[in-house]
Order: sequence, then C-alpha cells, then structure tokens
Amino acid sequence: MRGASVILKSMERVLALDLARAAKDAPGEAVKVTGWVHRIRELGGVTFVIVRDRSGLAQLVCGEKPADTSGAALTLESVIQAGGLPALNEKAPGGAELAVKTIEVLSRAAGDLPYQVNGDITKIGLDTILDYRILSLRNPRIRAVFKVQATIIEAFSAYLRARDFTEIKTSKIVGGGTEGGTELFEVAYFDKKAYLAQSPQFYKETMVASGLERVFEVAPAYRAEKHDTPRHINEYVSLDVEMGFIDSEKELMELEKGILSHVFEEVLTKNQRELELWSAQVPDPGLVAGAPVMGYEEAVKLANAESEKAKTSSARIFDINPEAERLLCAWAGREKGIELIFVNEFPRRYRPFYTYPLDASRTMSFDALFRGLEISTGGKRLHDYAAFLEVLPKFGIKAEAMEGYCSLLKYGCPPHGGFAIGCERFTQKILGLANVKEASLFPRDRKRTTP
Amino acid sequence: MRGASVILKSMERVLALDLARAAKDAPGEAVKVTGWVHRIRELGGVTFVIVRDRSGLAQLVCGEKPADTSGAALTLESVIQAGGLPALNEKAPGGAELAVKTIEVLSRAAGDLPYQVNGDITKIGLDTILDYRILSLRNPRIRAVFKVQATIIEAFSAYLRARDFTEIKTSKIVGGGTEGGTELFEVAYFDKKAYLAQSPQFYKETMVASGLERVFEVAPAYRAEKHDTPRHINEYVSLDVEMGFIDSEKELMELEKGILSHVFEEVLTKNQRELELWSAQVPDPGLVAGAPVMGYEEAVKLANAESEKAKTSSARIFDINPEAERLLCAWAGREKGIELIFVNEFPRRYRPFYTYPLDASRTMSFDALFRGLEISTGGKRLHDYAAFLEVLPKFGIKAEAMEGYCSLLKYGCPPHGGFAIGCERFTQKILGLANVKEASLFPRDRKRTTP
Repeated sequence: MRGASVILKSMERVLALDLARAAKDAPGEAVKVTGWVHRIRELGGVTFVIVRDRSGLAQLVCGEKPADTSGAALTLESVIQAGGLPALNEKAPGGAELAVKTIEVLSRAAGDLPYQVNGDITKIGLDTILDYRILSLRNPRIRAVFKVQATIIEAFSAYLRARDFTEIKTSKIVGGGTEGGTELFEVAYFDKKAYLAQSPQFYKETMVASGLERVFEVAPAYRAEKHDTPRHINEYVSLDVEMGFIDSEKELMELEKGILSHVFEEVLTKNQRELELWSAQVPDPGLVAGAPVMGYEEAVKLANAESEKAKTSSARIFDINPEAERLLCAWAGREKGIELIFVNEFPRRYRPFYTYPLDASRTMSFDALFRGLEISTGGKRLHDYAAFLEVLPKFGIKAEAMEGYCSLLKYGCPPHGGFAIGCERFTQKILGLANVKEASLFPRDRKRTTP
Repeated sequence: MRGASVILKSMERVLALDLARAAKDAPGEAVKVTGWVHRIRELGGVTFVIVRDRSGLAQLVCGEKPADTSGAALTLESVIQAGGLPALNEKAPGGAELAVKTIEVLSRAAGDLPYQVNGDITKIGLDTILDYRILSLRNPRIRAVFKVQATIIEAFSAYLRARDFTEIKTSKIVGGGTEGGTELFEVAYFDKKAYLAQSPQFYKETMVASGLERVFEVAPAYRAEKHDTPRHINEYVSLDVEMGFIDSEKELMELEKGILSHVFEEVLTKNQRELELWSAQVPDPGLVAGAPVMGYEEAVKLANAESEKAKTSSARIFDINPEAERLLCAWAGREKGIELIFVNEFPRRYRPFYTYPLDASRTMSFDALFRGLEISTGGKRLHDYAAFLEVLPKFGIKAEAMEGYCSLLKYGCPPHGGFAIGCERFTQKILGLANVKEASLFPRDRKRTTP
C-alpha cells in the first residue's frame, strides 16, 4: 500500500454522518473516510472495519485484510484514512459503507489498551474513566456529555447577549475571598500569598456598578472544600450573571427561567443524538415559566409533608438539605410537569453578609433546584453604603477588611443582584449522570490533579 | 419628592440611546431615565443633569435644584432615576432631553471621588486607573475597551462553532507544566503541590485525540514570568484552538486568518461607537487573507533590511525580537495594506519539544504578528509515538515524566495542531492601547493582586 498517502491526499474527506449522502449524490466518486478503528470483524474473507470520527461511525469493507506499511495487522483505536467508493447498505451504521481501495495508518495504537473503547462503558468504574480520559472520551456516550455542555454554554451566553448583557473575564487570582478566608486554595504569587477565586462575585458587582449594568461570565471557580460526594468538585465552571436596576430577586428568577428554557430548547434542537445515547428527557421548555417559586419556610414545610420518613419526629427536615431538594423537585414534577423549583426568601443565617434583606429574618435570595439538586444560587445584594456598614459588624467583619467592597458601594451603586449556575451540575441533571465528575472533562477533587 | 419611588416604579425605563426615539414616537408619555450623575450644570435657574447609563449620556432638565430625600444636593456619580417627558433638543447629547418631573436618588455617591470620572482620563496614570476600576470603567472610553473585548470573544467562538469546533472547559489546576517546570505558579492543593496551567496545550490535544477532532477554549492562562513590560501580564485570557487531520501549519494559519477577519468584521459592525472613542482603525477584513506568510530566516533578513540601526553591525537583528516584530508589521502594512504577518518555520531551538519538525533544523510552527506585536503562537504537533520518544531525550525530558503525553500518542492520535491568541494583546492592538494591562479588567502583574 505504498503511495497510498499521495492518492488519499487528493480525495475529499467525507464524515461518517455524510457517507450515505455521498453514496446517493455521487456513487462513482472516490472519497476518503478518516478516524479511529472502532471495531474489526471478519466474515467470509471480507474484513469490516468500523471507523469512528467526530460525527459517528462508518463501515469500511476491505477485500484484503488491512495492515500498515510494515505489514502489521490493524489495531483497535489506530487512526486511519481509507479511500474508496461509497455505497448504500441498510445494514451498515448510517445506511452506507465504503468499499475500500486504499488504506493508510496515520497513527498505530499500541495493543495494551487499558480497557476496550467499544465495550460497555457502564461496566467501567468512574476512576478508570477519569484516569483515561483520552480513551473514555472516545466512547460516543461519554463524548456526548461534552457536546451537550458546549450547547449549554453557547445557549446561556447567546440568551444574555441578546438582552444587552456584556461578557466579562475577571481575575481568578485574588488577594482574599469575598465570602471570608476559609475554603480557599492558596497560590504562591511571587513573594505574596494570593488565593484562587471562589466566585467572581465582587468583580461582577463592580462591573454592574461601573456602568455596564448587565454582565455575565463563564469561567472556573474554586472551592477548597473537603467534601467527597457525587455533587461536589473543587473546580467548576460557573455561569455567572449580574444585573443592575432590579427591585427584588424576583426579576432574577424570571431571568434565570428564561435562560433555562432557552438552554433546554437549544439542547433539544442541537443534541438529539447525544440525548438518545443517555435516554435523556429534556424538560419541555414551555413548562419552565410555570415552575413554582416558594418561600423558604413554606418549602421546608412542604418537604416534611412530602417525606415518608419525616412523619416520625426523629427524621424531621429542618432546612433545604439534599433530601428536601429531592422531595421538592419530585413534588414540582407531579404538580407542574417539571422537576424545577425556585426557593426564595432564605433566612439571614444561611446567606452571605452582602445579601439584601427582605425583613429582619429573611433575605431577597433564592436557590434553583432541578431534578433533586441545587444548580444555582442567587439574590439581590446590598447596594446602600450605610446599610452595608451597619451589617458588617453583625458578621464579625471589619470595614477595613472590605475596602474594595466599600469603594464599590461608596461611589454610586445601583440596586442589583445576580446568580450563578453550576455548569457541571446542570449538565449532570440534564443527562441524568450519577456523579457531577462525569460532567467535568478533567475534574479536580481532593485526590485528583491529573490528568 | 417623597412618594417619587412609587410614581417612578410605574414608568417605563428608556435608555439614553433611545430618548430621542421616545421623544419622537410618544412625546406626551412620561418615561424614566436611570443611571449615574455624569455632570451637573446650572444655567439661569435651570439645572442640567447629564446622566450616564449603559447606552450613553442623557440630559435631564430640572426646574428646581435636584436633591435627595434628606435635602442634600445631588453629588456626581450618584445613581438616580428621573421621570418626566422626553423632548427633542438638538443641543443635548443624542438630540433629546428629559423634562424632569420627579427624581429619586438610589445611591448617593460620597464626595471624595479619587478622581473625576467625567474628566480627561488620559491625564490619569495607569496605576490609578487600575486601582479604581470601579470608577475608571465609568469613563465611556475605558468601558469601550471591554465592549470590544466581548465582541472579540463572541466572534472568535461563533466562527469556530460554525466550523464544527466544540467548546471545551479544561482544568486550570495541573500536576505539572507541559512546557517544563519553570514559570509556574504553585497552588497548595489540599496536601499536595499543584500548579496553575500555563496553557490548555495538553488538554486540547487530548480532546482532539479523544475524537472531538476540533476544539476551542476561552479561559485564563498563567505565566509566572517576572517581566514588567507593556506587553506582559501574568494572567491572561487565552483564545485556544486545536484541530485534527491537518497536513501542516499552513491550514492553521488559514484558519487563524479566517478568525481574525471575522473578528474585524464583527467589531466594525458592533462597536462603531467604541472605535470612535479611541479613533481606532480596524483593518479591512478583506485584506486579512492577503497578509504575508514568511519563513523565519527570511523574516529575520527582512527585519534587518528594514532596520535603520541594523545597518551598523552592532545592532543587527538575530531573531524575531520586539523590534523585528514592529519592523515586519510596518513592512506588511506598506506592502499589503494590513499590519499583519505570519512568520512560520521557526527554528527547532525556539519551540517546545512537541513541535512537529519540518526538517532537521526547522519546525512546522508560526507566530502571528499584528501591529508590531506577537498576538498568537501555534504549530503542528508531534502525533507519532515513536518520533515523540526519540525527541524527548534531546530536550532532557524523561518519558516517565511525560506519562500523560505518552498515553495521548500511544493509543491512536491523528496529525493535529493548533494555536492560541492572547485576548488582551489582540484587544490592545485593535484599539491602539499603550499597555496590555489596559485590556485586562483586573490585571495581575508582579505587584498587583487587587482589586
């Protein structure tokens, strides 16, 4: 097969997805298929090679047993390009195959694959999947997670841009944490100590007050929490929004409903194939507007009423814990056809110092719960300098330690608020993944810093 | 003015930009204007208040001197909302003004502004501008930088999505650096040492080899370099691209030309007002395709020929240093009408170990130089495992230290390559900013970790 390279170079590449169309439109025209060897089958002197490319699977029919230039047999996961004639075949994936004339191995895969890419991925443990992202992502089902995630980020951004929000990029290296000094990763920054930002909270508020009024950011955020649960990771992609000139958190929940609805719509439009691989049901975008909004106290009551266990006093639910999140979403699903609920009016004690009060004990803040999981937190913020100075001592914070925040409020700051959606959690819940780490390409937890 | 709040709440907000239209379409209908007090002028018993909102400036005409509820006079930079009737007035900014009936102060700005927002920003030093982002960004000229930057990010992403590139988000906390262990910021990651990623190099290559084939990422990147120049920052937004199944770096340069051309087009369409504030000339998008591509050796020769100083042997140019970058761009500007040039075939010694060789001494890599500054670096990468193992010892690297990279190449990796565009440098050069820090909302340099 020497000289194959030159012949192949002149042929047009056809994606697996387009092979049937090529067979219909120009059956006599040689094309090439390029990708990874997904499966090899021999049947009555004919070798069938299933090649996987970014669009899907294509069947190659080879008269002789394919080999590389040294004569070694083709290995699974090798990267090849094959030239030949496209032909319709109902039994082939996508309804077409390539009758191979010329084949070239671009990169030979070693035979010691840690696990079989074309096998049943559900039988492989999460740690193995994460240790070998290079292989696990070749499984179409696993790759699908990140196609959906890309759509989420795109739809989130597009919805906000269309409403005059400006995309910002703020520093992830900060002098100190907005929420206090705990749970921060320390960075050796030249001869200083600095920290990885827990959220762009202060920066996005600054940008609202600087006159952009409406901003969003898609960027990593860091929590040095020692949690090791299916809902926690230490580095996540935060979909952040902040908006000026609001009256209360209600406008924020409306905005978030609009975003969620648009994301569902876009995922349904662009990711049908990916959704099928997970048998995932995306909520009806039209039902998002009707998702319940409920005050915190009422939500806790409802969670207790919904709980079987809570009927014995020893298992009463006292706050919106993971069990309450599940019960409330299940209830919303039954009542409104969508497992989405906004809980607002969170008690003062659960919210950061900069949260805007509703009254002495409650705040203008909320969580969004989706399919049993908190995917978002938000609220209106204090914008009045005098009120801010009054609140600080109650949280044991000195005004001097909040110099940045003070100048934010001191020189004219509009009423404002915002929220952040955890991108991985949202992806997880759209697809029904068991663990949030499955929705992070290279997740970071207490033990994992590679790959 | 008590009760103003209730009255104002019922009125529709009109942006400064839309005031003239409101005056034309519905002159008798009361509207409100909301924003920051930019300027106050008194003239014959009438007070003119110029209000600044996210769209621009609006003139309010007040019969009585405006004050807050306590009777204190209005201060500059306070946030107010004012209700009244819109009226056309050629002399007002935007050709219209608001005849004020009701006014409310939403946030009173303290009188000790560190500098005047409505003054000439060019007279204020860069450090002051960066120390007080909350105020400096209120200057429409400074805010314009980040409106343009948002367009750059949007256009970059849209161009690639339309070509089947998938957006990815990869970890910024890594076990070690791809480019070796120097110039990394160390992170205390629980009980381990980790580092801030210098680039998503390894991850984007992984995603290509995992089968996504074409990926891009917009994310922060970190360089612990001690440079303190107008072209360096220690944290920057990297616009990263990686693409499988390429023959050489030439396809990458073509792709980058397409991106740059699309960005110029979008900035011209969406940011006319911002460009005017900087008297910025965006290159003709149609000229990008014709930007020269030149081999490294030839480029060094040309730089010497273009240099006045190099005519004395003591000042010869030996590599593509900042002076050469300026000379080459100026030459391209004269010859092709666009100060953009791609220099490829960089010598082996200047490129990382994973760069694909062209021959014994040269590589399939390139820099893009724009208006005198390197804004981008890229190239084809090694994809052959045997070739990779051969190269490592020449760079003094042990295969064991490159375990991740090895498994990337070992299990089937297509020919591939990519590049990264520095978002801040690109913004800087489009607008003609003197220092790259001006193009970063919260820049990080050797001394600066706040705000």
